[in-house]
Amino acid sequence: MSDLTLPERAQRAIADCRRIATMSEESGRTTRRFLAPPVREVHGHLRKRMESLGMTVRTDAAGNMRGLWEPHGARAKRLILGSHIDTVPNAGAFDGVLGVTLALEWAQLAQEFKLPLAIEIIAFSEEEGVRFGVPFLGSRAVAGRFDPALLALKDSNGVTLEQAIRDFGLDPGGIGDAALDADVLGFVEMHIEQGPILESEGLSVAAVTAIVGQSRLTLEFRGHANHSGTTPMYLRHDALAGAVELITMVESLARSTDGLIATVGKIEVEPNASNVIAGVARASLDLRHAEDASRKSAVESLLAQAQAIAGKRGLAFEWTQQMDQPAVPMDERLSAYLADAIALAGLPTKLMPSGAGHDAMVMAARVPTAMLFLRSPGGISHHPDETVREEDVEAALNVGRRFLQRLAAEVG
Amino acid sequence: MSDLTLPERAQRAIADCRRIATMSEESGRTTRRFLAPPVREVHGHLRKRMESLGMTVRTDAAGNMRGLWEPHGARAKRLILGSHIDTVPNAGAFDGVLGVTLALEWAQLAQEFKLPLAIEIIAFSEEEGVRFGVPFLGSRAVAGRFDPALLALKDSNGVTLEQAIRDFGLDPGGIGDAALDADVLGFVEMHIEQGPILESEGLSVAAVTAIVGQSRLTLEFRGHANHSGTTPMYLRHDALAGAVELITMVESLARSTDGLIATVGKIEVEPNASNVIAGVARASLDLRHAEDASRKSAVESLLAQAQAIAGKRGLAFEWTQQMDQPAVPMDERLSAYLADAIALAGLPTKLMPSGAGHDAMVMAARVPTAMLFLRSPGGISHHPDETVREEDVEAALNVGRRFLQRLAAEVG
Repeated sequence: MSDLTLPERAQRAIADCRRIATMSEESGRTTRRFLAPPVREVHGHLRKRMESLGMTVRTDAAGNMRGLWEPHGARAKRLILGSHIDTVPNAGAFDGVLGVTLALEWAQLAQEFKLPLAIEIIAFSEEEGVRFGVPFLGSRAVAGRFDPALLALKDSNGVTLEQAIRDFGLDPGGIGDAALDADVLGFVEMHIEQGPILESEGLSVAAVTAIVGQSRLTLEFRGHANHSGTTPMYLRHDALAGAVELITMVESLARSTDGLIATVGKIEVEPNASNVIAGVARASLDLRHAEDASRKSAVESLLAQAQAIAGKRGLAFEWTQQMDQPAVPMDERLSAYLADAIALAGLPTKLMPSGAGHDAMVMAARVPTAMLFLRSPGGISHHPDETVREEDVEAALNVGRRFLQRLAAEVG
Repeated sequence: MSDLTLPERAQRAIADCRRIATMSEESGRTTRRFLAPPVREVHGHLRKRMESLGMTVRTDAAGNMRGLWEPHGARAKRLILGSHIDTVPNAGAFDGVLGVTLALEWAQLAQEFKLPLAIEIIAFSEEEGVRFGVPFLGSRAVAGRFDPALLALKDSNGVTLEQAIRDFGLDPGGIGDAALDADVLGFVEMHIEQGPILESEGLSVAAVTAIVGQSRLTLEFRGHANHSGTTPMYLRHDALAGAVELITMVESLARSTDGLIATVGKIEVEPNASNVIAGVARASLDLRHAEDASRKSAVESLLAQAQAIAGKRGLAFEWTQQMDQPAVPMDERLSAYLADAIALAGLPTKLMPSGAGHDAMVMAARVPTAMLFLRSPGGISHHPDETVREEDVEAALNVGRRFLQRLAAEVG
């Protein structure tokens, strides 16, 4: 064991995140899109950290920085750890990056305990989808799910993804080789929760059960735009009133259905004038559930209710679906190990779904995958105020030590 | 009596409207703002019509064209008839203008019946408020309610109201002289309903009881914008959900309160993104009632409900009021004569408030005022499809004949 205590390791993981946050496209703000110039600086920093752990370091053709450590002696099975290093514009310091700096600490713990595990740390190049409008570019490549057609995507400057990879000094022709090839035990991603649940329950960490499935629809009611003063209530075909009735039902259904979260965050009204009854009202619907059957049944129920509202009010109703993404359950065995490790660390065993997408969602298609959430103070993320508590990072290290021991005992 | 039948007079009143609709600022569409060039053409047409009835014609300093007919012999008391000749952009042919062409027909009927009534027809220059953003410029002057400060208003080209009057060849200094000065029996305005009520009840005309009072408010709920996937339902402060709950109550209150019409026609949400819980939702509230006490009580009740919703949901609530315009009752005696005339014409006696403002609202502050509504097919107005049924115009003439006879009998 090194001389460092868990609190000191936690402080180092946090300090690393703060330092990486200064490597930005914008002065005074953290903005780091896929393979933007400051990514070289991040790679330089991570390479030093990885090499100091005796790792073999490479950057794959999708821009993922990967450090592999293999214990001496017999060829050991490999555990993948990591998260992404790209950010949204004006980001916080921890979304993604904390999963990489924690992976470095886990790897060092595995080394110190001389566990018979090979560990590969991956700093995924792209998860947020900011530069090319498509997320998970890094993990798609590692999971062997990278569609070469993506190379034709253009950023806001007209630069293709293919060219961006070349400009960084990489060969887009090698993306196929980024895919995981060998005996892999699994992938574990650590990530801030980006929501308020752990904070509201006073908990440090949770094992993720699944990435929720997601439906996104646009619901449009069409009535008749009329004068608000001369059209009596009983002769109206008020599109906004119809939408409002449905939005009430959306909230009510989500509140009464276990695990369902449903949001109408966007509404567009035509003509949107205070003295004209709405002729058109378009509302977004974002519906998420860890079980696809529950999600689909909620969508069907709300569409039926919308039809009924439209019929009753003499409105036309149409809907379009922009997303129908299935839930991705985490690996049962690895997640159980994580849950056990949480309990062994003396913490309440919290299991929860992730309401947002993560690299773990993509990786799960290729390898057994588990995910550990850390409390997000104030539930704040994608904002410079995003932070993390040192005690929670320490908890993640404590959980990591026990998880790695359990895994090593199994494969040893 | 002339040889013309009532149907022929109705056809003439309608044809006159159609002809005047061609006098426009825009080719192929009817747009005629205050003292725009085509107004000269309208004045030329009306002058001929008025002079053919033996009227003395003048244009007052506010741009109102006025024709006065006085019977021979003893000086008779004066009845004012008329409506406005300005239009909204891309207007129909009847909003306002029909009240002028019907006034010409009423005046001719009075002459033919040799009624001892002086009749002044006023083609008000401005009612819609399009050019200078302030409505009723013409009737304000006639009612002696024209604030000289209005002369400084500018149109979209930076031309002041004062200059616009001068450019038309009139002297803005004479606006005070436009005010009614002498013994006036009252003012009667005929106007299309601009709503669907008469059509829905299968009626031709109605006597207006009052111009409804109107409140306009903006209601703002402020909550917390959060990620739609990671924020569970029970930890949300969803500003749109709060606004939606109130909008439901607005509709419900209006439906259950006799004579109340209430509309939320405009809603603004921030950030208005499908995957972000609304942090801010601003809704317009347009509330109208013929009785001010009922209107004010409705406003107070809804504001209290909004506060309760905000309290329950952990939202902030603020409101601002943009309009608090009292109801204007029509003159009881003149309105009763109109109602009697409707009955004598063999039609159902329909009384109804006007949900929109009219010149009659302004004139009522100066002289006893009554108003006759004509059915609006489809409830359509402020649109090229705006029309009127010949049988309803004939009904208005039939009502006019009996109304004028009744009034003449009283003053004769």
